[in-house]
Amino acid sequence: MGSRSGTGTSVQGEPSERKAGMGKVGKRKGSARTGSGRAPAYTVGLDIGGTKILGALLDPEGEVVGTVRRTTVHGADGLVAGAAQAVRDVVASGGVELADVAGVGLGIPGIVDHRSGTVKHAVNLGVHDDELPLAELLSAELGGVPVVVENDLNVAAVGAAHVLERSADRAGGAHDHADLAFLALGTGLASGLVLEGQLRRGVSGAAGEIGHVPVDPLGPECPCGQRGCLERFASGKALEAAWPSRHGKPSPVELFEAARAGDQEAIVVKDRFASATASAVRLLVLTTDVRHVVLGGGVAQLGTELLDAVQDALREQAKVSPFLGSLRLAERVQLAPTHVPVAAVGAAVLGRRS
Amino acid sequence: MGSRSGTGTSVQGEPSERKAGMGKVGKRKGSARTGSGRAPAYTVGLDIGGTKILGALLDPEGEVVGTVRRTTVHGADGLVAGAAQAVRDVVASGGVELADVAGVGLGIPGIVDHRSGTVKHAVNLGVHDDELPLAELLSAELGGVPVVVENDLNVAAVGAAHVLERSADRAGGAHDHADLAFLALGTGLASGLVLEGQLRRGVSGAAGEIGHVPVDPLGPECPCGQRGCLERFASGKALEAAWPSRHGKPSPVELFEAARAGDQEAIVVKDRFASATASAVRLLVLTTDVRHVVLGGGVAQLGTELLDAVQDALREQAKVSPFLGSLRLAERVQLAPTHVPVAAVGAAVLGRRS
Repeated sequence: MGSRSGTGTSVQGEPSERKAGMGKVGKRKGSARTGSGRAPAYTVGLDIGGTKILGALLDPEGEVVGTVRRTTVHGADGLVAGAAQAVRDVVASGGVELADVAGVGLGIPGIVDHRSGTVKHAVNLGVHDDELPLAELLSAELGGVPVVVENDLNVAAVGAAHVLERSADRAGGAHDHADLAFLALGTGLASGLVLEGQLRRGVSGAAGEIGHVPVDPLGPECPCGQRGCLERFASGKALEAAWPSRHGKPSPVELFEAARAGDQEAIVVKDRFASATASAVRLLVLTTDVRHVVLGGGVAQLGTELLDAVQDALREQAKVSPFLGSLRLAERVQLAPTHVPVAAVGAAVLGRRS
Repeated sequence: MGSRSGTGTSVQGEPSERKAGMGKVGKRKGSARTGSGRAPAYTVGLDIGGTKILGALLDPEGEVVGTVRRTTVHGADGLVAGAAQAVRDVVASGGVELADVAGVGLGIPGIVDHRSGTVKHAVNLGVHDDELPLAELLSAELGGVPVVVENDLNVAAVGAAHVLERSADRAGGAHDHADLAFLALGTGLASGLVLEGQLRRGVSGAAGEIGHVPVDPLGPECPCGQRGCLERFASGKALEAAWPSRHGKPSPVELFEAARAGDQEAIVVKDRFASATASAVRLLVLTTDVRHVVLGGGVAQLGTELLDAVQDALREQAKVSPFLGSLRLAERVQLAPTHVPVAAVGAAVLGRRS
């Protein structure tokens, strides 16, 4: 809720005008696949979260050739300095230099204006009411490399699309542009959309905010002011309320363990959660009809156990409705890739397009 | 429900290979605005419904220069012959000839495969299980003019986008690609999506099928097999069930008249309907974040009285939620244009792109 924005003046071109010389770009071999006619170049993406920064370096072919993980330093100054260090570290880990980097993309929670490169209300990063010109500050810190800033869900969706497209390429199959929703089961519930290869932000940056679609008039109140929002049933917060941690592990892990051990109450809570998550998948397909729904966010670290439960719930829902059955929802769901930091990869992809 | 499809083999090129000579195209003056480099040409669109066919002729600039209305003849043969006659009539009404027509688009209910140009399960047109190769048959009937077939909601959305874009052009403002959902309050409830100027069909033709998103676990059963679908609250059928016609006028008209006259029961039913329709608008924006939601379909013939009621309901919902308030939903809603047959216009636009 309220984690996105899209208003403000356009100054996107500004950082690239101050861009450093591109002479060294592409000194490592490799051909550009973008077809844009531009010199091949590396890009860096950072996924900035409340506790950690994940970074990825993409080579000119879009392959991940370096990753990094750092602890997040809160507050504006720490954020910029930490991000700059993460960029330098991931560049070094890939054996290249900052001058080889054509662009940097950042994925960040809070209200992001991708056009002006600013962020505000990123409360768990120590960024409050004042607008922080993050793109400009980081670009200056990096000697002028262009920087773009994007909502954390959008970079995750773009990253998942990038990984899926490259897998399809490697499999040698017909290449379709990726078409997917990244369904983030984090503390809250929201999604990012890539439709036929294009990031769909929406006109006010609210595309994919399905967590606040009311699905039960008698449901619990939501902090957003409405009642019975989907997020109240399908999110990490909803799970924690229904099954608080008792043994020091994350609530989803304890719940699934208890269900596996045969605890009847846990089975009920787990099934209800799986069914609510299935409802989120159904909602995404009935509105956008995306080819894939990619499960991500903290709760998705449960892995195949979560996927199985959600697919079972989708098959259960389809049993009563031939219409739903025809949409083959269970087949559209998959887990987010875990072999790469997918949001950081997406940020790097957007850094390339800047 | 089940009114769309998108599978089947691609034979889209077939009709155009049999296309008649283009020599006469553009003999009336006018410059092409498509930027495609193709010769300027007229296109025809038909909106084929259960009782009537509406037709529109677009000139090379995209202006509506002829319209027609015919009674629908049911069954495959009657459908093709009636559509062909409607094309000839609308062409004549615009003072041009069939040879000036570069393409024909059809909007039709039922399961449409736009790639193969076939339709099935258009039960209220007398087309049942067998697949009807409508594009091919009509093209042959018209001497080879290319014909495309599209879902009726999709043509309505494209038509509304076309009209909005042209209004913006005339107003001389900054030209944005139209970004909208066409929300059809017909017998059922569904929508068509145009996102940044592009028709969004979805991978199985199900994009915009919001009528079958469940919004109340205790709601009435839906013929689709689920319970509490949005269509059970916001559609012509829902209105008729809640307020059956008593005086020979359509149920929505009688309901709104009774509410205006102060009938307390009618006011409750009307408010509930407006609130459910507002929920459909909210759902569309929270998923796709479209700039405009255009109200169409039979119920929208109520006009400004409906628009006012829906906008009031949206403002009411926003009162409890600053988050919803920030999305300015009431400002996004408008009535479908009535000065042109908007679905037929959309069909003609798609006929041009074929």
